[in-house]
Amino acid sequence: MNFSAGEVFASEVVGTALLILLGAGVVANVILPKTKGFAGGTLMINFGWGLAVFTGVYASWKSGAHLNPAVTIGIMTNGQDTFAPDGLPVNFGNMLLYLAAQMIGAVIGAVLAFLAYKNHFDLEAPAATKLGVFSTGPEIRSYTWNFITEVIATFVLVFTILNFGNTPSELGPLAVALLVVGIGASLGGPTGYAINPARDLGPRIAHAFLPIKGKGGSDWSYAWVPVVGPLVGGALAGLAATAMA
Amino acid sequence: MNFSAGEVFASEVVGTALLILLGAGVVANVILPKTKGFAGGTLMINFGWGLAVFTGVYASWKSGAHLNPAVTIGIMTNGQDTFAPDGLPVNFGNMLLYLAAQMIGAVIGAVLAFLAYKNHFDLEAPAATKLGVFSTGPEIRSYTWNFITEVIATFVLVFTILNFGNTPSELGPLAVALLVVGIGASLGGPTGYAINPARDLGPRIAHAFLPIKGKGGSDWSYAWVPVVGPLVGGALAGLAATAMA
Amino acid sequence: MNFSAGEVFASEVVGTALLILLGAGVVANVILPKTKGFAGGTLMINFGWGLAVFTGVYASWKSGAHLNPAVTIGIMTNGQDTFAPDGLPVNFGNMLLYLAAQMIGAVIGAVLAFLAYKNHFDLEAPAATKLGVFSTGPEIRSYTWNFITEVIATFVLVFTILNFGNTPSELGPLAVALLVVGIGASLGGPTGYAINPARDLGPRIAHAFLPIKGKGGSDWSYAWVPVVGPLVGGALAGLAATAMA
Amino acid sequence: MNFSAGEVFASEVVGTALLILLGAGVVANVILPKTKGFAGGTLMINFGWGLAVFTGVYASWKSGAHLNPAVTIGIMTNGQDTFAPDGLPVNFGNMLLYLAAQMIGAVIGAVLAFLAYKNHFDLEAPAATKLGVFSTGPEIRSYTWNFITEVIATFVLVFTILNFGNTPSELGPLAVALLVVGIGASLGGPTGYAINPARDLGPRIAHAFLPIKGKGGSDWSYAWVPVVGPLVGGALAGLAATAMA
Repeated sequence: MNFSAGEVFASEVVGTALLILLGAGVVANVILPKTKGFAGGTLMINFGWGLAVFTGVYASWKSGAHLNPAVTIGIMTNGQDTFAPDGLPVNFGNMLLYLAAQMIGAVIGAVLAFLAYKNHFDLEAPAATKLGVFSTGPEIRSYTWNFITEVIATFVLVFTILNFGNTPSELGPLAVALLVVGIGASLGGPTGYAINPARDLGPRIAHAFLPIKGKGGSDWSYAWVPVVGPLVGGALAGLAATAMA
Repeated sequence: MNFSAGEVFASEVVGTALLILLGAGVVANVILPKTKGFAGGTLMINFGWGLAVFTGVYASWKSGAHLNPAVTIGIMTNGQDTFAPDGLPVNFGNMLLYLAAQMIGAVIGAVLAFLAYKNHFDLEAPAATKLGVFSTGPEIRSYTWNFITEVIATFVLVFTILNFGNTPSELGPLAVALLVVGIGASLGGPTGYAINPARDLGPRIAHAFLPIKGKGGSDWSYAWVPVVGPLVGGALAGLAATAMA
Repeated sequence: MNFSAGEVFASEVVGTALLILLGAGVVANVILPKTKGFAGGTLMINFGWGLAVFTGVYASWKSGAHLNPAVTIGIMTNGQDTFAPDGLPVNFGNMLLYLAAQMIGAVIGAVLAFLAYKNHFDLEAPAATKLGVFSTGPEIRSYTWNFITEVIATFVLVFTILNFGNTPSELGPLAVALLVVGIGASLGGPTGYAINPARDLGPRIAHAFLPIKGKGGSDWSYAWVPVVGPLVGGALAGLAATAMA
Repeated sequence: MNFSAGEVFASEVVGTALLILLGAGVVANVILPKTKGFAGGTLMINFGWGLAVFTGVYASWKSGAHLNPAVTIGIMTNGQDTFAPDGLPVNFGNMLLYLAAQMIGAVIGAVLAFLAYKNHFDLEAPAATKLGVFSTGPEIRSYTWNFITEVIATFVLVFTILNFGNTPSELGPLAVALLVVGIGASLGGPTGYAINPARDLGPRIAHAFLPIKGKGGSDWSYAWVPVVGPLVGGALAGLAATAMA
């Protein structure tokens, strides 16, 4: 079975939208005021994001469920021929197709998370908290070290995804979900583990245009770190996986 | 192997009863006074409900384990021919059979949870806490936005269930269990994620007739939200899954 | 492949010992003073017991990993022919073999948990806390309702185990592990979910004879509840599973 | 397919490095100041280490993913012929190859974790906290009992790994990951569950040479316990698994 470019595009949009809806959702549940999950803790956020990936992957079966430009880049530097088992050939045009779909999906997902938590966004809360539902920010701002953390964490993500095929299991999307739980628990401490340019930039754009009560700036000065760091980490992981094959 | 209507009915009753027994049970454990799990946190409630689904699904192997009218509706709008791999044909009569079984099972499950926690219901606690073991209630009451949250969360549930078959794994009932953990963590913050009309209405009926010490009203003014919202979300998910197929 | 009675016996001893070592261990970690896991919460205890079952099951591959007299009884009332896929025929003698192995294994496991946490047992702590590492006790003492809670919880356990085969998955021992996590989270609130006579009585015996600093009585007046309740629940589950088959 | 000694070596280095990067990382996230996961609790550390193993195993598919000298020793005393399904023959030279790779990988992983959390190591914190990211230390120092705890916990790890093959599932690396979560929750209370000489000694060496701000000594007087204890536990497990086969 071979899917058309349009089907791949739609698949990647929907999967990324679900990923961000559930991912931004769990952060909203834990940090916005008066939610059931308020102060639910870091492990809950880690599981929420992991299961957000789990859900998104099921939706994106036609596109191979990249849901992440760093994965798309890693597949390219890894030297694979197609973007998914039944997918489009690896070339610059199809890369743009994936990246566009991921960005559009991420914006849609962020808007849906905003709607699901509308009542809670209307309450008073620090502007940084409201931005924190959408995009990542470092606990200690230091572009160099924040960048390094994002490179390392994304390397682990993409390198392991590229290795999945070598150790057969029947976990399906659970494998990548657990990987994301683990990376969040272990390497999310300093920067909040964007490890995905679309996951950070899409919601940041949504934050900029949505009518969020009492919102502050969208912290554009930090925005390049969770975009460039993951792209570098993903590209290096593709090369490393080739070297280790 | 083809199951009779009676077998399907019994299967769906037992599975839904187990779902609600364990689901109401984990809420009781976390919010009723003097339990081992008191104040155990939101993530524990999320896992408890997820594993309640896990358990219920195993019991309902003859009916395809809908356990949820929103799933039954979603299968209908999705245009499937039967309600389960070896199941009854999709038609109005069989839909009623499923819905009746789910409601009866949900009431039975709520009664069993009440019995399991009888000593703790006898202690003094706010009436809203005691109702909270049975049915959902919003943190911020706003019928419009509560409705929207339930539509979105149920859409994610039913859309993903309808997608499961496209990404093979051998997780069996664990896939839907984890999906429910994730939806709870991510989208449960505003309304407590009914995402299932039987899960909310059945226990609410049980709350109304059970001799619970110091109970208050059953909040019937809110009761339509966790019924209609999930039905709309499930119906939309069935259509969307068809469109994306 | 057919295993001898001796092999089955040894298999069941070792598996139950591992179950209790890890199960008593997680309680010790959470409630004894000065441990790394002190006050780690109920969900941690639930996962600990679930993964204790997980580990015990792998060790008991020759005996079918009952690890629990309630499971053994449930298999008998369910009308099965053998105690495991390659196992001994179901008869009274072999039942005694299983029960004896489970009790011996449980005592050994409790002794090992005591040794692993010896330094922490030597510290001052309430006698009830030290007993709590070994056997269960109700939060609100009421033999009738505590009994009912144990019957319900064990019914869920054994009924679901007997249903596992009808819904194929490749989860192996993870299915029963997650089931135990779920029962603990949902129905463990009132009594601490013995749901296994050997799990409660074996460690209670160990508590009685071990030289535990500052220990109090072994609460023998409650000891029948977590023995008889699970046996009744397991027997009913076997009958119910037959009725639903 | 048969892998060369160089491929096995590289595979074991990379897998152990990922194990320690994520394992030390989760401890850093929970105990270093100003991280997102600060005070995230013991269960988060247990899941973090479990998923660290999960990730490391995928990377080490060419070497059979020992990642742990106690596993290597256990395979030897178990009397197996090769160190992995497609692996090198069991002999003293290849044992040294595995141990060297594990130690080198562990040092690399600890350095990467230090880099990922550099900003947070630069903050003021007790010297024992900073050492705690790298290597284990007992809550109550008592070489005899700490040693016994490490022997018991490692025995459970290696004995269960050697039993995995007898109970088929399709969990792949998830089985050992969950086993490590369980051992951590249940037996990690007294000593922090090294259960792996490379996991403890490698990061301790890294702690000794890294320029960590405000670091104290590397506690070499305790260092033998988490090396010798796991080796003894692993060797005993290999013998026990043979006896039970």
